[in-house]
Formats: sequence, C-alpha cells, structure tokens
Amino acid sequence: VRVADLPTPCLVVDTATLEQNIATMGEAWPGRTLRPHVKAFKSTAMARHLAAAGHDALCGATARELLGLAGAGLGEDLLLANELVDPRRLAALAACGARVTVAVDSGETVDAAARAGIREVLVDVDVGCIRCGAAPDDAPRVAERARRAGLEVRGVMGYEGHLMMAPPEEKAQKVAEAMAVLARVHEQVGGEVVSGGGTGTAAVNRWVTELQAGSYTLMDADYGRAGLPFRQALHLLTTVISRNPGGWAVSDGGLKALGMDHGNPVMDGYRLLFCSDEHTTFMAEEGGTLPAVGERVRITPSHVDPTVAYHEWLYLASGEDVVDRWEVDLRNW
Amino acid sequence: VRVADLPTPCLVVDTATLEQNIATMGEAWPGRTLRPHVKAFKSTAMARHLAAAGHDALCGATARELLGLAGAGLGEDLLLANELVDPRRLAALAACGARVTVAVDSGETVDAAARAGIREVLVDVDVGCIRCGAAPDDAPRVAERARRAGLEVRGVMGYEGHLMMAPPEEKAQKVAEAMAVLARVHEQVGGEVVSGGGTGTAAVNRWVTELQAGSYTLMDADYGRAGLPFRQALHLLTTVISRNPGGWAVSDGGLKALGMDHGNPVMDGYRLLFCSDEHTTFMAEEGGTLPAVGERVRITPSHVDPTVAYHEWLYLASGEDVVDRWEVDLRNW
Repeated sequence: VRVADLPTPCLVVDTATLEQNIATMGEAWPGRTLRPHVKAFKSTAMARHLAAAGHDALCGATARELLGLAGAGLGEDLLLANELVDPRRLAALAACGARVTVAVDSGETVDAAARAGIREVLVDVDVGCIRCGAAPDDAPRVAERARRAGLEVRGVMGYEGHLMMAPPEEKAQKVAEAMAVLARVHEQVGGEVVSGGGTGTAAVNRWVTELQAGSYTLMDADYGRAGLPFRQALHLLTTVISRNPGGWAVSDGGLKALGMDHGNPVMDGYRLLFCSDEHTTFMAEEGGTLPAVGERVRITPSHVDPTVAYHEWLYLASGEDVVDRWEVDLRNW
Repeated sequence: VRVADLPTPCLVVDTATLEQNIATMGEAWPGRTLRPHVKAFKSTAMARHLAAAGHDALCGATARELLGLAGAGLGEDLLLANELVDPRRLAALAACGARVTVAVDSGETVDAAARAGIREVLVDVDVGCIRCGAAPDDAPRVAERARRAGLEVRGVMGYEGHLMMAPPEEKAQKVAEAMAVLARVHEQVGGEVVSGGGTGTAAVNRWVTELQAGSYTLMDADYGRAGLPFRQALHLLTTVISRNPGGWAVSDGGLKALGMDHGNPVMDGYRLLFCSDEHTTFMAEEGGTLPAVGERVRITPSHVDPTVAYHEWLYLASGEDVVDRWEVDLRNW
C-alpha cells in the first residue's frame, strides 16, 4: 500500500523520524530511566516497540491504558501516573496480573487503592502544575497513611507540566526549583523512585530517577516550537475536496481528527484559515498555488495526545510506502 | 444502574430534555422538512429515534456515517452533505442498498460520483461559509456536467454555517441574503430540493425545503448562548480525583473527552481554570465550596460534535436513573 492510497483523514507516522526520536531520547534516558507514557500514543504496538528498545517499564493516565498493556504482556512494571478512586477499575488493576503501581495524593486515593488490593504506590507531589499532587507539606502524611494501610510506597512522583513550554532561558532554573521541592519530599517519604518530567523537560531534568515521556515519539507543532531535539514524525493526511475561485481550498480533515486545545494545526506551504468539524479551509502562501481537488495535503497537529485519541490507526510509512499500521487500541475509558 | 455508578468520564444525556428538543424542532420542521444531521451525534440509535419521530430522511458528513445508517435499515433517503472523491467509498455508497444522494461542487466531484455509480446529487453552492460549495455563477455548469454524466440532480444545497452564531438582531437578514443566493441558483439548476440550514438558523431560515440540523438534539454551551429554543441535554460526567489546599480541585475528564475548538467548556457552580489531557482543574465560585474527592461534577461541552466523536457511548438518563445507552457507532472514518 502506498501513502497515496490511504483513506483520509488518517494519521501517518514517518518511521525514520520515529526511530530517530526514540534513539535520541534513549541515549539520554536509557532503559528504565525512561518510563514511556502511553497517553501520548495510546497504542500497545508502540508500547511494545519502546519496550523492545529497553524501556519496558511503562506508564499511563487511565486504567484502560494499563489494562491493555497488561493484557498484551507488557506488565513488567506499570505505573498509573494519575489518581483513581473508582473501586472497580482499581480492583481490575490489582487483579490484572501485572506489577501495578498507582499514584496517590490524598487519604481518599490511598484508601481506595488499599481497599481494592493495589499493593504499590507513588506519592504524587504538587510541584507547581495546578493539577494533582499532594501539597509538599502533606505528602509525608499521605505516605504514612499508605504504609499504615499496608501499601508499599515506592517513592514519589511530581509532574512539572507547567514548565514543558517554559522559555528555554528559564526552563532549567524553573525545573530545578520544582524538582528541589520533589527531592525534599522524597527525603521525607523514602523509596527508590523519583518519577516525573516529560518531553519538554527531558533535556534539563536531572533529578528524576525515571522520566515520564511519550510525546517525543511522534511530536506535534507545539513541541516543535520548543527547541527540542525531536522531529515531527506525525501528520494528518487529508484529501482536497473543494477549491473555490475566492482563493481557498478545503481538505477532508477537521475538528474530529485534530486536538484543538493548543490552537490551529499547521500546514507546510499553505496558510490554514480554520478547521470545522470535517474540514480544514486553507489558502496558498504568497506566490504559491492551491492544490487540485483530489490531491493530498498534510497537516501537522498542534497537540499530539488529543489528536491521536480521535483515531483508530497510526499508519507507519517509509517514504511513500505504508509498512505497517498500529491500532490505537488504548483509547476511550 | 444509577448515574452515580457510571464509570467516568462519560457523556450523559437527559432524556426529558432530549425529547423536548426533538419536539420543539419537530413542530417547526415536521417530517422530511427536517433532515437530521448525524454528524452531531454519530449514533445509529439516535438516528433511528429521530426517524421514528418522522424525520426518516437523514444526512451525514462522512461515508462511514451513511454506510452505518444504511446497514441499520435507515436508508430511505440519505444525503452525504459533503464532497467526496474517494472512489472506493463512493462505490461502497453506490452499492449499499440505500437511496444515496451526494453533494457535488466541481467537475472532479461530479466525475468521481458518476464513475462510482452514484445516481443522485445535489449541487452544493457557496453561500458565504468559506468552505465547500461551487461559486454561485459556476453552479449551473456543475449541474449541467452532472446531468451529462447521467446523474439525477435533485436540487441544490447551501450551508450558511458562518451565520449559526450571528448576532440575533442581524441573523434573519443575513440568512435571507445567503438564501437569496441559493434560491437564485436553484432557479437555474432546478430540482425539488433546497437543502441547508442548521440548528443556529432553524428559526429564521424560510427558504430551504429541508433543514439540516443535528446539534439541537443534545446542544452545547456555545449554542446555549445563542438564544435558541433548545436546552442543554448533554453533559460530561466526571469524578473529582484530587483537591488541593491551594483552592482547586481536579476531575477526571479533559482534552480527550471534550472538543475544545470553541474554547473551554462550562461548569455550573464552579470556575473552570483549564483542561489538560485527562483532567479539568477548577475552583469554587465566590462563596462556594469545592467538592470532595470521589464526588461527581458535570461539565457542559462547548462544542457537541467533536466532543461526541471522542466517546463510545451516550448514556441516557431519566433523573438519576440510567435508562439506556446508545453506541456512538458512526464515528471514525
């Protein structure tokens, strides 16, 4: 199958770029110092590929992601890098046969995990992201409560998500400050694991024992502007379905194929006007020409995670040849 | 099952409000004067419900939507209200056993339809939306080309999508102007059908013979601000998973559960700060209190179509009882 024969809209992954991104990250964070975050790509096949590259301790944001990995035999060391209080899902995780560690940041999350039969936890610490995580002063009490409930506290977790897109000249210093908080809590909480970080801070986070990152594999337009050593491996392939004498054309991928929270996606060589449910309207750049109806045009998503979550497949391409397709089997809940 | 027992995040539909919305629209646009647009809800079950209410001529934006409707026995009169040049999908539509009409706006779309064995078309006319549709002066030539290719031209289509959210005091006049263009082209093109409109212009569009609308069934926060006679029937149910002494809480629905192109969703009783991939961070309103970890909170999506496209199920609730669930079986491509 050729890329030109794929039904559109669809996500196409350039395998050479993907491999380069994996190699670049793997040099800096080899083996289990990297804990690939499957939330970015939601595909067991991609997870298996990363595990084969040595990164066989994985993390996810939903029970479904972890249960899917466990079912696929990728359950060596799975971290739910998120809080969960649903007793049925926690029980399913406890019974799935994999080694499962869950994040806890409160008495409620500790109690829910213990009641469901979860055995290991990380204490999630608020390092400034305005999201989950116990306040640093409360974290030791959460750890104590977990140990009293019979849970093994493997260490701490702290996600500096608010710094992923910090200006390069400030990023290292701000990450150092956030991680100083995490290191201080870690001293009090104990355990061997300090988990955190992401694609945007991989180059400057020297404190975590394991980096949680997933977007580096595929990348997106937003991370593409952040001066990172990873390259754009993913695009949305679309077909031009209309061209107007007013000077615009329309392709067949829109809001249901693209995560839009980071703003409009990007089209190389064209000026994207707007996306609607099933369409992207665009114009030629100054001096350029519009493609004909039936031609293919590529769109670079602005945010990879909510983009992939719309799709059933990632089509892997080597040049113009489709060499494989990976199911996005870990989406939904 | 009680709503409180549903796994989160999930979409919950209030059946009483849904029925009221359907009744309100059905009074103004009875039977086949309304052509429900399944792109808004992507569910065969909802389409069947609307067909049972008399609206058994349906439209969609993708081949997958129409093929699903045809397979479910809802193929009395299906319109692909969108351009399509993919020969395999067009052939599948031509062979699906349903009455299928497709929109065409160019020689390429006419030729692709004719070659695939499609029998009936509408000429799609640009009425100002900056998207698909032949320029009004070109539309008669598109119709002529279709007839020469052996296609039955059932009439015209023109979507005034740019006016759905026009200020109420201008909307009627602007719709009249857009529809005057469509009426003029219709005189030249012929056929019995003038198809167009939407939820936002249902009250002021007096020109179409059939209104294409879908969002009125479920509604969203954006349409909720437009002064329409339809009420919010859909919300995203989430569970609070974290609460921070800094004054915020976090629930478990985020960017992969909510279409974000119309901006942030809305939380009644709380101040929503931001959504991230799996989370919504929010604060109490002035004088209010934050919910406890484990409590449920409701989020009203800002844009229904790309929200529903993230989900597998619509859970139908009467008060706190879940009375049914409808699969979102027409999503993807």
